[in-house]
Amino acid sequence: MSLPSAIKFYFDFSSPYAYLLARDLTHTCQRAGRELDWHPFLLGVVFQQSGRKPPLDSSPRGLYLQHEVQRTARRKGLKFQLPKHFPFNSVLALRVYWQVHAISPRRARHLAAALLDATFLDGLDIREPSVLGPLLERFGLDAEALLAHAGAPEVKALAKTKVDEALSAGVAGSPWVVIDGEPFWGNDRLDDIQHWLETGGF
Amino acid sequence: MSLPSAIKFYFDFSSPYAYLLARDLTHTCQRAGRELDWHPFLLGVVFQQSGRKPPLDSSPRGLYLQHEVQRTARRKGLKFQLPKHFPFNSVLALRVYWQVHAISPRRARHLAAALLDATFLDGLDIREPSVLGPLLERFGLDAEALLAHAGAPEVKALAKTKVDEALSAGVAGSPWVVIDGEPFWGNDRLDDIQHWLETGGF
Repeated sequence: MSLPSAIKFYFDFSSPYAYLLARDLTHTCQRAGRELDWHPFLLGVVFQQSGRKPPLDSSPRGLYLQHEVQRTARRKGLKFQLPKHFPFNSVLALRVYWQVHAISPRRARHLAAALLDATFLDGLDIREPSVLGPLLERFGLDAEALLAHAGAPEVKALAKTKVDEALSAGVAGSPWVVIDGEPFWGNDRLDDIQHWLETGGF
Repeated sequence: MSLPSAIKFYFDFSSPYAYLLARDLTHTCQRAGRELDWHPFLLGVVFQQSGRKPPLDSSPRGLYLQHEVQRTARRKGLKFQLPKHFPFNSVLALRVYWQVHAISPRRARHLAAALLDATFLDGLDIREPSVLGPLLERFGLDAEALLAHAGAPEVKALAKTKVDEALSAGVAGSPWVVIDGEPFWGNDRLDDIQHWLETGGF
């Protein structure tokens, strides 16, 4: 008997909707007996290629979405803040994550959840090595070496490969979940994801 | 004792998400004992002002959304099609609707639901007077007079006023529902709408 394939979770470390989905998705996958494969990428690259702009700006739509994201967090009972430095470039966190992933996918998963919490629960700026360092040490990782190598050509190439993999998979937003080839975009697809896993598709 | 205020339902007649929401929203309002105030506008004016583009294009995001809208309809058990002439300009339907509304808001409501069904259930082109005419007659309305006057300055002015009212209310998409000042954007906010009505806000 073959194991069911892992559920892919594509996201950007700077995505509030990824934070809002991550815990529920983790529990949903556990209940369904499915692995969750955390695959961070850079949403900025998607926006650049498509000519789209980050949604939470100061337009009427952006202001509505800022209001809605807070309301969604309240309804989920999740502490949430949009940090002062939002929107931000998450490339350093991305490079550190994929370095850790090459050593230990399990520890990378814990780190990823902690990075989303650091930003959207605690309001910390994960672009700063002084913020990333203690987080890495918390998981028994060599913060100094990981941060020192984050700009090395092989690490940049690894991170770029992972972003390209997301683009090749058709990822057009964050969070983006794929179950047996079926894509689900957005925190608000959780109910569809649960129903899909329970029924095997609809 | 004062009656609770009506729930506002802003939408564009060419919006598939408005079609997907309309029936459920009607039932939800009935159960909550609240009036539903159908307020069609032109999404194109919102897009024009904000520099946004219709979402269901041929980009990776657009293709995903086309897939998702079909999947959402299946899950809701609603017959659905994206008609061949989609996306389209719904200004004629808008002008006819507001003329009917001036005569009878109740009949306008029935007409609005029928116009959404005509497009997304039957795939008919409601830009065509030959399609609109029989729909109007079905509700005992004078199709010939309504269509003949659709281009009259006072009708154009009335429709423009209604679009401006939507913009002034901060409407940035379709469907857009407002309950006692609280906005909800999108077919996928139905669960939040129901929870809001049950709990009085969260």
